[in-house]
Amino acid sequence: MNGRILALAGGVGGARLAHGLAHRLPAERLAVVVNTGDDFEHLGLAISPDIDTVVYTLAGLADRARGWGRAEETWHFMQTLRELGGDDWFNLGDRDLALHVLRGECLRRGQTLEAVTVLLAARMGVSVAVAPMSSHPVRTRIATAAGELAFQDYFVRLRCEPSVQAIRYEGAQAAQPSALLADCMADSALAAVIVCPSNPWLSIGPMLAMPCLDAWLKQAVRPPVVAVSPIIAGAAVKGPAARIMADLGLAVSVLGVADFYGNRVDGWVIDAADAALAPALRSRGQAVFITDALMRDEADRARLAAEVLDFAGSIAARRAFDPRP
Amino acid sequence: MNGRILALAGGVGGARLAHGLAHRLPAERLAVVVNTGDDFEHLGLAISPDIDTVVYTLAGLADRARGWGRAEETWHFMQTLRELGGDDWFNLGDRDLALHVLRGECLRRGQTLEAVTVLLAARMGVSVAVAPMSSHPVRTRIATAAGELAFQDYFVRLRCEPSVQAIRYEGAQAAQPSALLADCMADSALAAVIVCPSNPWLSIGPMLAMPCLDAWLKQAVRPPVVAVSPIIAGAAVKGPAARIMADLGLAVSVLGVADFYGNRVDGWVIDAADAALAPALRSRGQAVFITDALMRDEADRARLAAEVLDFAGSIAARRAFDPRP
Repeated sequence: MNGRILALAGGVGGARLAHGLAHRLPAERLAVVVNTGDDFEHLGLAISPDIDTVVYTLAGLADRARGWGRAEETWHFMQTLRELGGDDWFNLGDRDLALHVLRGECLRRGQTLEAVTVLLAARMGVSVAVAPMSSHPVRTRIATAAGELAFQDYFVRLRCEPSVQAIRYEGAQAAQPSALLADCMADSALAAVIVCPSNPWLSIGPMLAMPCLDAWLKQAVRPPVVAVSPIIAGAAVKGPAARIMADLGLAVSVLGVADFYGNRVDGWVIDAADAALAPALRSRGQAVFITDALMRDEADRARLAAEVLDFAGSIAARRAFDPRP
Repeated sequence: MNGRILALAGGVGGARLAHGLAHRLPAERLAVVVNTGDDFEHLGLAISPDIDTVVYTLAGLADRARGWGRAEETWHFMQTLRELGGDDWFNLGDRDLALHVLRGECLRRGQTLEAVTVLLAARMGVSVAVAPMSSHPVRTRIATAAGELAFQDYFVRLRCEPSVQAIRYEGAQAAQPSALLADCMADSALAAVIVCPSNPWLSIGPMLAMPCLDAWLKQAVRPPVVAVSPIIAGAAVKGPAARIMADLGLAVSVLGVADFYGNRVDGWVIDAADAALAPALRSRGQAVFITDALMRDEADRARLAAEVLDFAGSIAARRAFDPRP
């Protein structure tokens, strides 16, 4: 398979697969487009949690145990903020802070979020193209019994405790795709789209809520789209995906996610633990690749990335004989 | 001497004498009003260098060797900011950052600089009243051969290298006094005003440029005003005061400072090294107290504070017999 690969990524799971893809592909063949629905302004700082996780992971700077922020981090700012009575529900490491302060400064000077992301990723030594899904603000809002919450209020401050009734993506209708995303959608040589194993509702949902990307994914003719299930054996590898699915009354399995993505996806990569669900996916006309879908270390990331690329290639090859209607 | 003492303070020298006064007086008898002419916004942070130095010093948190910022500081934010290509000419410690971030957040929420200062000083355990000279922005601007510079550009970024042609205090005409300063000026029981040994042009000048304070200090009837000379033996104890005086063509001694303060000051505390200048000051009708004016340690601060208070008391007592015209 030649041509560029577009990876749609959220936080940890997306960052890990993107890292694996970056190991497998020459830099010019990978474009990573990242969710911004979690972005927020906090204490005057411009925080883009998913972009940061992806960029730190690609740069080899991410903390592996924590799942967010930088390795070898210190917490003197946070400790002092707490002593001074400041809001301390969102942790910010001393090194991590530099990124948020600098991003805020660039945004205030009129740079787009995409330009700032490209600049800061380059300064961290990331060679693959990384961009937000849009430079326009999209904000995930969570409807709960206690009222509608801003995403980070739900996710961090309230630790996902309120039951989720509905999710909306404020600003998504009007948000225009970033230059990188627009360029990929217009690229006749785009080889495949990889939907990374990120939270479908929190990380991928904001992207699908952008009409241009949604319409493009639903087109009859486009490159193969392969999704890696973030749900393994009825549980999310990380984060609240399973809980949200239960809250929303959905089946907590790849089938529930497949219902959500619909015909935007052509093939599913699922874990061996979920092999029994493969027939149900195939009966919907979707290809299935069964493997070890858990990324424990860098070797797993690279191995899963290779399998995902081969699988996407096999879907493309099959189309060459049996073109999609 | 009973009644409250108002100390006008800038950075290090002012903070040290204020600290000595805080050791000598019950908390309710001391009000420290601090210069804000050095304040600036940097990387979106609200930085008030003199307030911070005074509050850190009163709280026992100041770094003694450096003269600014906190003791036991770390620099991981700064190091990362540099790696990311951010502006690194103004040093910000990891702990110190919490203060700037929190202050900015409070100001954006509509709190006054005075309210924020009072709140943060209380949280650092400072019991004496500390407030900015005004909650309205006053910004010291330095005219040089290379054009007019914002204060921190001159002071930190260019390390006071450009020759100073003139100094103006943008916003001072319109700035209203903080509640603490207004309260002191209206306090019929105010016992004395201490002009701390801070840079006359950079730390005290912005206050004198506020018409209300200037007019109050020039009144015929008001409490005694005692100034401690920041110039000892032709040199500034710290900072660029001597250099600025030379740039401006002034005599680099307490006499040049006395020319600047004029009849706003009733008595001078000078160092023994400058005893020869006492007659010139006395010939202007100003009282003089000669001592060791250098504050090397906390004992010096407390000793000098006691001497300054006694000296102010002696001026007040003399007035009781020979009232000021």
